[in-house]
Amino acid sequence: MSHADLITARTARLRAQLADGPFDAVLALSTANVDYASGYRSMSGSVHGSNAVAALVTGGLLLLSGPVADAAPAFDAGLPEGDFLAFGRFFFESADGAAEATGLVEQHAGAAEAIVAAVHRAGLAAATIGLDEAACPEPLRTALARALPGVSWAPASAWLTRVRSRKLPGELELLGRAAALAEGGIVAALAHARAGVTERELARVVARTMVDGGGQPKFVVVTAGDRSALADAEPTDRPLAPGDLLRFDVGCLVDGYWSDIGRTAVVGSPTPRQSGYYDAILAGVDAQLALARPGVLASELFDVAIRTTEATGGPAPYRRHHVGHGIGLDVYEAPIVRPGEDVALAEGMTFCFETPYYELGWGGMMIEDALVVTADGARPLTSLARGLTEVPA
Amino acid sequence: MSHADLITARTARLRAQLADGPFDAVLALSTANVDYASGYRSMSGSVHGSNAVAALVTGGLLLLSGPVADAAPAFDAGLPEGDFLAFGRFFFESADGAAEATGLVEQHAGAAEAIVAAVHRAGLAAATIGLDEAACPEPLRTALARALPGVSWAPASAWLTRVRSRKLPGELELLGRAAALAEGGIVAALAHARAGVTERELARVVARTMVDGGGQPKFVVVTAGDRSALADAEPTDRPLAPGDLLRFDVGCLVDGYWSDIGRTAVVGSPTPRQSGYYDAILAGVDAQLALARPGVLASELFDVAIRTTEATGGPAPYRRHHVGHGIGLDVYEAPIVRPGEDVALAEGMTFCFETPYYELGWGGMMIEDALVVTADGARPLTSLARGLTEVPA
Repeated sequence: MSHADLITARTARLRAQLADGPFDAVLALSTANVDYASGYRSMSGSVHGSNAVAALVTGGLLLLSGPVADAAPAFDAGLPEGDFLAFGRFFFESADGAAEATGLVEQHAGAAEAIVAAVHRAGLAAATIGLDEAACPEPLRTALARALPGVSWAPASAWLTRVRSRKLPGELELLGRAAALAEGGIVAALAHARAGVTERELARVVARTMVDGGGQPKFVVVTAGDRSALADAEPTDRPLAPGDLLRFDVGCLVDGYWSDIGRTAVVGSPTPRQSGYYDAILAGVDAQLALARPGVLASELFDVAIRTTEATGGPAPYRRHHVGHGIGLDVYEAPIVRPGEDVALAEGMTFCFETPYYELGWGGMMIEDALVVTADGARPLTSLARGLTEVPA
Repeated sequence: MSHADLITARTARLRAQLADGPFDAVLALSTANVDYASGYRSMSGSVHGSNAVAALVTGGLLLLSGPVADAAPAFDAGLPEGDFLAFGRFFFESADGAAEATGLVEQHAGAAEAIVAAVHRAGLAAATIGLDEAACPEPLRTALARALPGVSWAPASAWLTRVRSRKLPGELELLGRAAALAEGGIVAALAHARAGVTERELARVVARTMVDGGGQPKFVVVTAGDRSALADAEPTDRPLAPGDLLRFDVGCLVDGYWSDIGRTAVVGSPTPRQSGYYDAILAGVDAQLALARPGVLASELFDVAIRTTEATGGPAPYRRHHVGHGIGLDVYEAPIVRPGEDVALAEGMTFCFETPYYELGWGGMMIEDALVVTADGARPLTSLARGLTEVPA
């Protein structure tokens, strides 16, 4: 499926949900929601850590607002010219004069004014609009309420997350590619791992594999020995030593879609405690995988993973705040596999299941895999062997 | 210089400025400011796009507050145990019981409560504290004001930026390494570039060079032909064609320090307009470089770049919102080289100077280089050739 076809399919799904939903339109604000709705993800936004692009979606219209600098790349990504309402200062010239002088983009005083103009253009000044409230800074919310007194704003972040949670075939393809690159990186690093090699060297092998396959490395946790217990930590020049646990937790982006895959190895032969705990956390992940199917609650997956890990010789109590999460255009998406998350799985939802164990002074271990919920179960998006790999001491 | 020595030197500089400054202590909140003050940069914060770690710095104390998950990696990065005030739910186990049960970290109800506890621990309940206000969400500000009525909060974001602006030798070393990797990536990609090769293939060569050298690719803009005019845009499968401009604008991270380097090539021989405009924007950058020395204002650099580009056969008017920016732990740091930025250059400041030109339908070109201000001028951090490279058509 081409990326353009995927964007068309996503917009169609969003509109179908909108037709059945409680809003006349939805205003997407988070990077992932704007990307889902429009196919455009601001590169300068992600470099500078602040997304200022918004997408207003109705049954028939898609309008983007954002900094002028995003206008030309958004048109290049497929947005019709004229459908970007801009603010800020940036110069794209053109043969017949400046872009903003030729009507290429509208100019507004700021982010709020551009959104207000989009709402008026779409004829929504007296409508009910779903607001991506979790990504809406207070000043923007206040400005919108003041400038659009006839609009009824309803919270829409959870609704957007639900729409995004059931993946389309093109999304599964990209999630599969991202997962395969993370797996491939781990395989390549394991082939290279032996006593004396450093965490950082192995992290480079992982990142290089992702890059060579067309992914953008986003996090490459390669930690060994004591450091394997640190959860999310940068790799260092610490060399592998005999007896070390070696933990990988790595992810990359492919066309906006994330991976998040974890594996553990041991340098030499495992101790009984290492292999016993490993077998238990593997049994915990496997129990989730065996239970996952439409209708099962995320909270039930949590319970089975904890119970199984404890019952098969793992740490007892085995304590975690979650043992998995949805994945897609965000690395953590609802549903989260945690206590109280009484959300039913549905066909097409994608998850990462994981049962990490971190013990300071001893080490950390994990298995994390990606999967999609099918009509009657779950299908892994990964194919990597799942045992405790032994690398040369 | 080891990374530990660099962190010690940075903290010492911060404390020296604090001793001369208007605050008794400073509360750093942005990722870069927390990193500068403490040497700790939250990996989970950067993956999930939200930094929740804060650093409270006095003449004698450095306390971090943040999610429990950040506690163990922060200790591993050198923070003494006990100096992390935690909130949230995460389990690090230890041989003698749970981490939070053994006093490894304090537990607080939330981000604000942890900061409040740090302020009390430091004896600052009636002090003047510089607040990194630009990175302080409104609810946190309100909670701090309510819980600490005796504290006088003063804005400190600009002050922190000024402290960070004059780089230490260890910082220059890392900025130089990051710049060298960006340059090396461009060199490798240019060696590979010819008609038929795609933007995406060249972007991979750049990213692989960065990874192999120990950098984390952060943005890899490789755009050709019409797309070279799009400013910040993702590379695509568009193949190079004869006559295309080919524009690189790439950056990576090395131990927290950024690079941002730009170069332009042409597929085959340049047209007179391509080479004429290129010579002019190069003259514009060169004029900045020639003028840069302590005491010169950033706004004067802006004027000379615009005037020189226009006067040497470039686009006239040549319109830009800025022609350079500071660089360090952030990719854009004050001072910005723009109109009205009447900030004097000082020895040790690092900049990227750039004079891009974007014309929709024709193409874009740029030269962007990194440099450090010296006692009597400026020294480039880059050594890459600066002409308009010709690649095989």
